Amino acid sequence: MPNLVDLADLPPIRLFDGVVARRVEGERVTLAIVELEPNGVVPPHQHRYEQNGMVIQGQMRFTVDGEERTLGPGGTWRILADVPHAAVAGPEGAVVIDVCSPIRDDWNDLPVIERLPYWPRS
Amino acid sequence: MPNLVDLADLPPIRLFDGVVARRVEGERVTLAIVELEPNGVVPPHQHRYEQNGMVIQGQMRFTVDGEERTLGPGGTWRILADVPHAAVAGPEGAVVIDVCSPIRDDWNDLPVIERLPYWPRS
Repeated sequence: MPNLVDLADLPPIRLFDGVVARRVEGERVTLAIVELEPNGVVPPHQHRYEQNGMVIQGQMRFTVDGEERTLGPGGTWRILADVPHAAVAGPEGAVVIDVCSPIRDDWNDLPVIERLPYWPRS
Repeated sequence: MPNLVDLADLPPIRLFDGVVARRVEGERVTLAIVELEPNGVVPPHQHRYEQNGMVIQGQMRFTVDGEERTLGPGGTWRILADVPHAAVAGPEGAVVIDVCSPIRDDWNDLPVIERLPYWPRS
């Protein structure tokens, strides 16, 4: 399995309605590139994975454990394990990084869809 | 400590000559946003941290365990623990994501410098 791969060659999986991820993972950490449609919603939830992340493109309204902010490119989050969080993409959608440890074994059975990446567009 | 922070408010640390990082970390994973000056060099090395990443801006010539490729935006790497790797930025430099687990406790004593982020520039 190659270690140097273009985003466009990673299979997209559907996390929520209007929320799709591609991922690179080894044994300890999942690096996910997540695309949210305009106004796409990540409903409130929590899980055993620590999850840190950053907006690459677009805007996200993020809530972590009662703290709430609108984040643009370069806006970051830190979500320790078992901390409740939720997010809503802005009117133009968003492309974000989410990194999780342990690896997201709960994503292994999610449906793979066919779609080109929103970002980067050359 | 807030969980929602802008990249520009994270302290930059010097990893190598011409290679600077800002980071978000909890207990299990370090999400680093790394800026490399034009032709900036990450010399060959290896470590106990798994390290996955992606180019956001610019180009990187990457070598992982003998595999070698030039990566642009969206180009990814997966480096399992203790696997040798090296990289050189392209002539315009690069901004990349590096995510490591366990967290990079070896960075705690690196010098903090003063600099605005290369990316994003509004």
